[in-house]
Amino acid sequence: MSFFDNWFAKKGDGDKLSRPILNKILETIRESAIVVGEDTRVVASNRAAYNAFGRRNGALDGKRLSEILRDLNLHEAFRRALSDKKSSDIELEIPLENCKYDVHIAPVEIDDQRSAVGIFYDITQIERLETMRQEFLSNISHELRTPLTSILAFVETLEDGALRDEENNARFLGVIRKNAERMHRLIDDILELSSIESGNVSLDVKPV
Amino acid sequence: MSFFDNWFAKKGDGDKLSRPILNKILETIRESAIVVGEDTRVVASNRAAYNAFGRRNGALDGKRLSEILRDLNLHEAFRRALSDKKSSDIELEIPLENCKYDVHIAPVEIDDQRSAVGIFYDITQIERLETMRQEFLSNISHELRTPLTSILAFVETLEDGALRDEENNARFLGVIRKNAERMHRLIDDILELSSIESGNVSLDVKPV
Repeated sequence: MSFFDNWFAKKGDGDKLSRPILNKILETIRESAIVVGEDTRVVASNRAAYNAFGRRNGALDGKRLSEILRDLNLHEAFRRALSDKKSSDIELEIPLENCKYDVHIAPVEIDDQRSAVGIFYDITQIERLETMRQEFLSNISHELRTPLTSILAFVETLEDGALRDEENNARFLGVIRKNAERMHRLIDDILELSSIESGNVSLDVKPV
Repeated sequence: MSFFDNWFAKKGDGDKLSRPILNKILETIRESAIVVGEDTRVVASNRAAYNAFGRRNGALDGKRLSEILRDLNLHEAFRRALSDKKSSDIELEIPLENCKYDVHIAPVEIDDQRSAVGIFYDITQIERLETMRQEFLSNISHELRTPLTSILAFVETLEDGALRDEENNARFLGVIRKNAERMHRLIDDILELSSIESGNVSLDVKPV
């Protein structure tokens, strides 16, 4: 028995009383809620669902689920809830909108009427932050590698005898210095980027 | 008028019918929902709220909000909702648990009974990912800087004349090489880390 059930039980005529509160909650949550009847038509949905899936398709209520979301796994999960009364958790990707959701689909039976509820939790931002971090790491590693490879190669050349080659050793050393300076700038950029992102950057205002 | 209101209106006796669905939704969402009465005692809450705030304090219902969450801004926001009928959005930090929430607090009036609803959206993971990224960037920058500073210093020493000092130039070059190799390992580590995180790593299985 849920807390809300508890509350309803205590209230007696709480059904009517509680509706404004339940509505307020449903309209406030960021998770999308879609209720589907046995014919897989949407019987109810909240504002988050409309904002996520309705802008492209208009009002959701009365539409078939397949008109709103074309995802086989999602339909299979709703079917399982409606005919087998089984809950499932799936990951839904909407490639066109670059969005990702964790979706929980559960059966709900009311008297003899079967329906299923889908709750969509948006994980787009979390996934995007993870991907950004990985891509960034991979990019800076490759950026840093190029000058470093050059440094190592010229150090080796010098160690292999060029150190005593007075016509070239200063030039080779110059190449090492230039590449080390390039790495220095790259690392400064990374540091600056991390302070900009953490908001710890102070602007250097100068007269134009 | 919300979608759910619409649905209720169509159903007629929908109040009773809809309760299982509403309960299912409230118990499934990850956002915490807490309803507070005029005396700031909790009259209803969902499972997410219990998981987030109840484990330390036990059941939430009947408790004063101040027994569950000690945050001045939060209490002020609930007060505004209860006495001034004003909604607000605040950021709530729970330092002990290292958690952060975006909270929307709204007044709800049922007949003459005033109450307020708080919806807590957990932003801990998103904030943590952001912080991790910044700290990581700052750490690797500092890690890379130490050997690079050494490289640049010894290149300068060689360019300032030590290149012709046959007793020391090979040793100085050796220091440059060692530091460049150290940087190489650091960059390899960064790359490996980014592939582990993206799941693109293959394990090197060897007989023991």
